[in-house]
Amino acid sequence: MEEELREKLSRIRPLEEKFLSQAQARLDRLTKPQGSLGQLEEIARQYAAIVENPNPQVDKKIIYVFAGDHGVVSEGVSAYPKEVTPQMVYNFLRGGAGINVMSRHVGAEVVIVDIGVDHEFEPMEGLMIRKVGRGTGNILVGPAMSRDQAVQALSVGLEMADHARKQNADLVGTGDMGIGNTTPSSAILTSLTGLPVNKATHRGTGIDDVALARKIQIIERAISFNKPNPQDPLDVLAKLGGFEIAGIAGLIIGCAFHRIPVVVDGFISTAGAMVAVGLNPDIEGYLFASHQSAEVGHRFMWEHIGKKPILNLSLRLGEGTGAALAMSIIEAALKVMNEMATFSEAGVSEAKE
Amino acid sequence: MEEELREKLSRIRPLEEKFLSQAQARLDRLTKPQGSLGQLEEIARQYAAIVENPNPQVDKKIIYVFAGDHGVVSEGVSAYPKEVTPQMVYNFLRGGAGINVMSRHVGAEVVIVDIGVDHEFEPMEGLMIRKVGRGTGNILVGPAMSRDQAVQALSVGLEMADHARKQNADLVGTGDMGIGNTTPSSAILTSLTGLPVNKATHRGTGIDDVALARKIQIIERAISFNKPNPQDPLDVLAKLGGFEIAGIAGLIIGCAFHRIPVVVDGFISTAGAMVAVGLNPDIEGYLFASHQSAEVGHRFMWEHIGKKPILNLSLRLGEGTGAALAMSIIEAALKVMNEMATFSEAGVSEAKE
Repeated sequence: MEEELREKLSRIRPLEEKFLSQAQARLDRLTKPQGSLGQLEEIARQYAAIVENPNPQVDKKIIYVFAGDHGVVSEGVSAYPKEVTPQMVYNFLRGGAGINVMSRHVGAEVVIVDIGVDHEFEPMEGLMIRKVGRGTGNILVGPAMSRDQAVQALSVGLEMADHARKQNADLVGTGDMGIGNTTPSSAILTSLTGLPVNKATHRGTGIDDVALARKIQIIERAISFNKPNPQDPLDVLAKLGGFEIAGIAGLIIGCAFHRIPVVVDGFISTAGAMVAVGLNPDIEGYLFASHQSAEVGHRFMWEHIGKKPILNLSLRLGEGTGAALAMSIIEAALKVMNEMATFSEAGVSEAKE
Repeated sequence: MEEELREKLSRIRPLEEKFLSQAQARLDRLTKPQGSLGQLEEIARQYAAIVENPNPQVDKKIIYVFAGDHGVVSEGVSAYPKEVTPQMVYNFLRGGAGINVMSRHVGAEVVIVDIGVDHEFEPMEGLMIRKVGRGTGNILVGPAMSRDQAVQALSVGLEMADHARKQNADLVGTGDMGIGNTTPSSAILTSLTGLPVNKATHRGTGIDDVALARKIQIIERAISFNKPNPQDPLDVLAKLGGFEIAGIAGLIIGCAFHRIPVVVDGFISTAGAMVAVGLNPDIEGYLFASHQSAEVGHRFMWEHIGKKPILNLSLRLGEGTGAALAMSIIEAALKVMNEMATFSEAGVSEAKE
């Protein structure tokens, strides 16, 4: 299983300059001042370079929401009880959650992946049951998972990328559900960047000052106890991560392998993206940074990866909601490239030299 | 005509607190941590308070693009020749411009208003011919328009708001076309706020350093020659403004009068919004700030009005393109309020006290 992962990682290539400049040349012929569509132009040329097609169209969009539980929740790091993880999975499957509303709005399909919820689900439409365990271990007293489990969880993500490929997805989004999962995400951020824990850690679903101070202490102790090796992202993921974070990392790796553009959601998803980019830096080229969340550490994640978020709406819900919203902006950028008239087609005079 | 304007201005009321808190109470019952949808929640409650309906839905969306020419273009303030204004109007009417692409993407209708283009158009589907003049006067050597013309141009905007009301528009967007129109917009910004001209003025469609220095000088001289009275927004508009800026201001006033939420586009549209809010500060409550543009003065406009832009994509195209994109975000915010399940409906546990 680790072999498949290594093989796929080794076959991911950086984006080619010729596709980027071909797309920009097209954008520069359209009836608008050059560069006047700002970040939309960056998005359009990146997408064109990922799919190696100067006139890409987005038809099929799928958001994969990975759900898992976290042993560290027993330490009181969240404002919500852990039962909320399976309760929200049922809410997703009935179409009543934020991600369902956003996905319907932008025309995306939602696939829920149980990668480690501490609850037995019956098989249901829209739910992939791929449990690696019933929740991770408590990182305060041991690793979140074994290295084998981390590889297994990454493979679940790779499998979802294969699923996206089979479904002819043109755009994939990442999403998460897991009470307590800002804790492992902050721990991964700290571990991979050296950022102090108090800068990487925030209120998650809404804890108060006392609980925040406690959460910071727990993360500091978890890192010093587990001693993850920052040079080995797989070690960091196994010792600190959540199953859903691993699944997201695997999905991102698999999408880069298949050249499917992938829209990364908020704080938890970006922790997964950091692991993926840590395993192969060329993966950065395949990512769209959907948004900058209200969780304070998030901007350090994007700075580390080197991406400018598309939206900045102070969202902190997760589930893939930011990824869904950003999909609509990405589609708009591609429609510009495909549907706008050129200066010569429209008979419009160009700028004076 | 000025009487109708004064009458409408006097009947605009501030938003009522009870509708804002009613909407927030609904948002707080939904299956998400309280406040976790950030700016989307602000948008939803503002929209609900404007239309005084706790479950508002957006069906009909119309973007009004006001086009006009500018005498000051003869001073070389733009990278494009003035023929581009009518050429772009034809491009709009054929559906090949940025605003057409964005509007189709978000399902909005586009209405083009010739409020002062220096070109005679034949009557065409989708074009309202409401010329106040064939371009404004050159502000370097006199006022852009007379006070009567300013009132007439504002009335064209009021008429478009009436049109929106008759069409049952749920959301209106503003747009502009007019080669040279960042110059009057910067002049209005300076005049209404006292901001130095060099902070209010930027490259527009893409002028170089020499032309920018010249543009700044022209604006300084235009202000010192015309002596607009900062306490009288109508005077500022008449002496420095463009016909399209006046039309946008009138549209905004009319929408506030009819309680139609209005999405303000970029730098030129926001100059119109500044005039409208200058005439009645309560109008601010009816506006959505679509985006923060790449034109450097734009953020000072939003700070002056007191609104946080929804998007920040370094756009600088105008036409209403940013307003169109933001409409999709506003709709998403309303769908959250209308379609998400509550904690009790979904059987999800709430946060611990």
